[in-house]
Amino acid sequence: MINLSDNILKDTIQKRKTISHKGDFGKTLLIGSNANFGGAILMAAKATLLSGSGLTYTATDPNNVTAIHQYLPEVIATNYKQTDQLITLIHHVNVIVIGPGLGNSWFSLALLKQIFNHVSEQQVLIIDASAIDLIAKYDLNLPKAKTVLTPHQMEWQRLSGIKIVDQTPEANLKIVQQLHSVVVLKKHQTQIYTNQEIYNNLPGTPAMATGGSGDTLAGMIGGFTAQFNEKLNAILAATYLHTKIANDLAQTHYVVRPTQISENIPLYMQTIAQDN
Amino acid sequence: MINLSDNILKDTIQKRKTISHKGDFGKTLLIGSNANFGGAILMAAKATLLSGSGLTYTATDPNNVTAIHQYLPEVIATNYKQTDQLITLIHHVNVIVIGPGLGNSWFSLALLKQIFNHVSEQQVLIIDASAIDLIAKYDLNLPKAKTVLTPHQMEWQRLSGIKIVDQTPEANLKIVQQLHSVVVLKKHQTQIYTNQEIYNNLPGTPAMATGGSGDTLAGMIGGFTAQFNEKLNAILAATYLHTKIANDLAQTHYVVRPTQISENIPLYMQTIAQDN
Amino acid sequence: MINLSDNILKDTIQKRKTISHKGDFGKTLLIGSNANFGGAILMAAKATLLSGSGLTYTATDPNNVTAIHQYLPEVIATNYKQTDQLITLIHHVNVIVIGPGLGNSWFSLALLKQIFNHVSEQQVLIIDASAIDLIAKYDLNLPKAKTVLTPHQMEWQRLSGIKIVDQTPEANLKIVQQLHSVVVLKKHQTQIYTNQEIYNNLPGTPAMATGGSGDTLAGMIGGFTAQFNEKLNAILAATYLHTKIANDLAQTHYVVRPTQISENIPLYMQTIAQDN
Amino acid sequence: MINLSDNILKDTIQKRKTISHKGDFGKTLLIGSNANFGGAILMAAKATLLSGSGLTYTATDPNNVTAIHQYLPEVIATNYKQTDQLITLIHHVNVIVIGPGLGNSWFSLALLKQIFNHVSEQQVLIIDASAIDLIAKYDLNLPKAKTVLTPHQMEWQRLSGIKIVDQTPEANLKIVQQLHSVVVLKKHQTQIYTNQEIYNNLPGTPAMATGGSGDTLAGMIGGFTAQFNEKLNAILAATYLHTKIANDLAQTHYVVRPTQISENIPLYMQTIAQDN
Repeated sequence: MINLSDNILKDTIQKRKTISHKGDFGKTLLIGSNANFGGAILMAAKATLLSGSGLTYTATDPNNVTAIHQYLPEVIATNYKQTDQLITLIHHVNVIVIGPGLGNSWFSLALLKQIFNHVSEQQVLIIDASAIDLIAKYDLNLPKAKTVLTPHQMEWQRLSGIKIVDQTPEANLKIVQQLHSVVVLKKHQTQIYTNQEIYNNLPGTPAMATGGSGDTLAGMIGGFTAQFNEKLNAILAATYLHTKIANDLAQTHYVVRPTQISENIPLYMQTIAQDN
Repeated sequence: MINLSDNILKDTIQKRKTISHKGDFGKTLLIGSNANFGGAILMAAKATLLSGSGLTYTATDPNNVTAIHQYLPEVIATNYKQTDQLITLIHHVNVIVIGPGLGNSWFSLALLKQIFNHVSEQQVLIIDASAIDLIAKYDLNLPKAKTVLTPHQMEWQRLSGIKIVDQTPEANLKIVQQLHSVVVLKKHQTQIYTNQEIYNNLPGTPAMATGGSGDTLAGMIGGFTAQFNEKLNAILAATYLHTKIANDLAQTHYVVRPTQISENIPLYMQTIAQDN
Repeated sequence: MINLSDNILKDTIQKRKTISHKGDFGKTLLIGSNANFGGAILMAAKATLLSGSGLTYTATDPNNVTAIHQYLPEVIATNYKQTDQLITLIHHVNVIVIGPGLGNSWFSLALLKQIFNHVSEQQVLIIDASAIDLIAKYDLNLPKAKTVLTPHQMEWQRLSGIKIVDQTPEANLKIVQQLHSVVVLKKHQTQIYTNQEIYNNLPGTPAMATGGSGDTLAGMIGGFTAQFNEKLNAILAATYLHTKIANDLAQTHYVVRPTQISENIPLYMQTIAQDN
Repeated sequence: MINLSDNILKDTIQKRKTISHKGDFGKTLLIGSNANFGGAILMAAKATLLSGSGLTYTATDPNNVTAIHQYLPEVIATNYKQTDQLITLIHHVNVIVIGPGLGNSWFSLALLKQIFNHVSEQQVLIIDASAIDLIAKYDLNLPKAKTVLTPHQMEWQRLSGIKIVDQTPEANLKIVQQLHSVVVLKKHQTQIYTNQEIYNNLPGTPAMATGGSGDTLAGMIGGFTAQFNEKLNAILAATYLHTKIANDLAQTHYVVRPTQISENIPLYMQTIAQDN
């Protein structure tokens, strides 16, 4: 087991090349938010954008499109019910995040299957929230892609079959090895599992215990994997930075809004890059 | 009669346990805002969220759903006309706030009765604004729950039958004892009545005399009772902190927007918690 | 002719009585914004709210209702096509502002006539922008109310028949005396005309020369006349403060957004009130 | 080739005349944003408004109208499908920006042709993004107007037929001379081409490599050409200032949101004007 430290940020977040172009920093597509959970995609996309993804796309319930454009003018919003457009987008991007606010309706399930059918081996696919529950409930096989799962403990119980009290590193690792996925197991001290290794994140603050922290983390992992080549480092650095910012904000805030974390990402990233 | 002081904040707002989870800080459902009074639910929900409720849900006119998601991405917004979904939500949460912007239509009345039918003894039910008028007008019985009423003086006159000039502590207390409710009687110096006791709040600033102060207070009481076990203390502390923040802002602002009060809640709560 | 100075602010903006209630600070109804000019009512209402009107209502095209609730949760928004509701509101408030973004359609004309029919002698009626043009074009008689007209020079030309180059104080005053109105003639150095007197405002900054300055001024006059008893002083103080804040912001801003002026109103008012 | 320096800002951004009027600072119409790309027109219009255009109009997909009013109340929003209204607006303004978020549908093409038919020689017409691609794809002739094209390198390849690797100053200039247009060729170090001269901008920061930088630049050129008489200087100064602000923000931000650039325009312009 490896304890993460500020080094993971220094190893990952580099000064950008002087001559570069938005295409150099990746394209991320976030899919989620039914009509009731419209805020989740806003929070995830805000995190992706402010993490530095070159372009950020969303596919969501049509009721959420106006809100996205107004909340984040830099983000492109599409209706996730327009299948042709969605498939074109899937092939256009290098990172896909599915799950924030997706819900567990029949439509959500069909959409998830659609993504799994069209994603390719070179793409990073981050699977969060109700998308994880759908996989567990319908026993779906993960697609051939660089998959990242971001369950909290209860979602992991449903997916792995391991009860929360029995979620030891050894038991977890065994299931992770069957999944051929990176698993970000969210809890007070989040752990990141690969096939061979377990990484311990910073312990988190209870001020983050509010709706939307997970959506923000999924969006950050999207933004980091879109632009940084070392995918594992990108996942580790995003997870670490999410907690580090929240812990700092918790010095002065009894509760930390997830959107506040996102607003601080560019400032923290620049502090790290300029010292590198 | 007991005069509240900063001690009520210290007694109530504790450092959060290091290892905790959003479920530990309660689930609050706010019900209100017809199409004309769309801002009330936004203000109440902002106060609940920033008071630290683990999860914050709203049920409102469908015209308000997009506004809620965009204004408060952390909050879940549902259509209050979808009865099945609403009843599921009522059973899912531990605190319910009903009234901000609800209006006094036949639909509002039917909705209020629905809540009264489904709420349980373990739940906190905060009844505000037009919900109080509906109870007075249709002589509704309060349900078996931990009810909190938050009338201003005119609403209290309608509910209690006591004219404003006759609203003495003794007269008020007699009616409160019949209601088996905590009553937060809002006025220049708000009083909180229980079956046995009367608590005097800080005197308030006239800079708060603007639409939305009451919605914000109802939301704060929701957020505090959702996360703190001592329910009476939670009500007292929310009421006291609402006034304290407004009074401080009034040092520099001729009028204090209720949404400004909410934005300061996490900062004040942290100052108190870290000194504890 | 009287040159206004900071004294008009000191004479008007008093410390609020400690024991007071939102009803003590007036109720203002703003009517305007068709579907194309949706921003005007937002700017006017923001100014009214932040000037300290106890309650702020708007009646507008239904397409603007969601935007108002979200932009200004403290403000109540209604559909100006619902005639019964509108008439009830007119009788409910003490100040009415009509014109910002109203446009000059047949509907606008009908609406304006409706207001004129229902307004009463005790009410302040502020007439701005296209409402002034409609009066000029259709030769409407002003209603029996405390009317305030806020034309810029071209609107004044249309209404008074005096060409801009011929708009001397003497010529203007003659027409004002026929109108039995206060006229706020907006230009580089705005003048306020009553039946007997002419007041010169501060000269304004060219940084204010952008869409929305007038809507903001109309809203401020609404907020000031709603809460302060000396109606003429309220008009003079609102006009003076609008320019004073803009001039101060122009020290650091090449263009001053009208919404920035509004955000500063409570700070300026408090500075004045606490020195009184 | 001329290297631009801070002098272009001093030469262009003058103190405004004390006695002036919003009509003195021009009227800009921005046309763009289909339903998917709703954010582009918001970003472009924000830049135009904050650059100091006297009045800012937009014509866009009807789904975007509410978002514009709420995001930028100072801006007037119209439905670009209402042809009569659009043509009236075209004749009403002195600067037109077409392209941000326009897309390349048949409707986009028809709209572009409509603009080309109605624009006049005295007007500035800024052509950006997909509008450039449509010209290339359908081999459209540029209208008789003061046209400005703002392609990035790939759009320039499509329009000029010169592959990116072959885009030498000489080759580019030859095509520019055929177009009778000013061409702002966006890249790490943007170049501005006129018939006779090539101007080198400041090198830009990679922190700007995110969606929306181009929309913001097009909006700034709109705002500058609307108010400043020397049109070439206005274009050069807008381009230079856009990069200068972004470079400054990149000292502390790993990614710079285009909307942050816009928020800083009035502050930078005032610093320059007051030193003049």
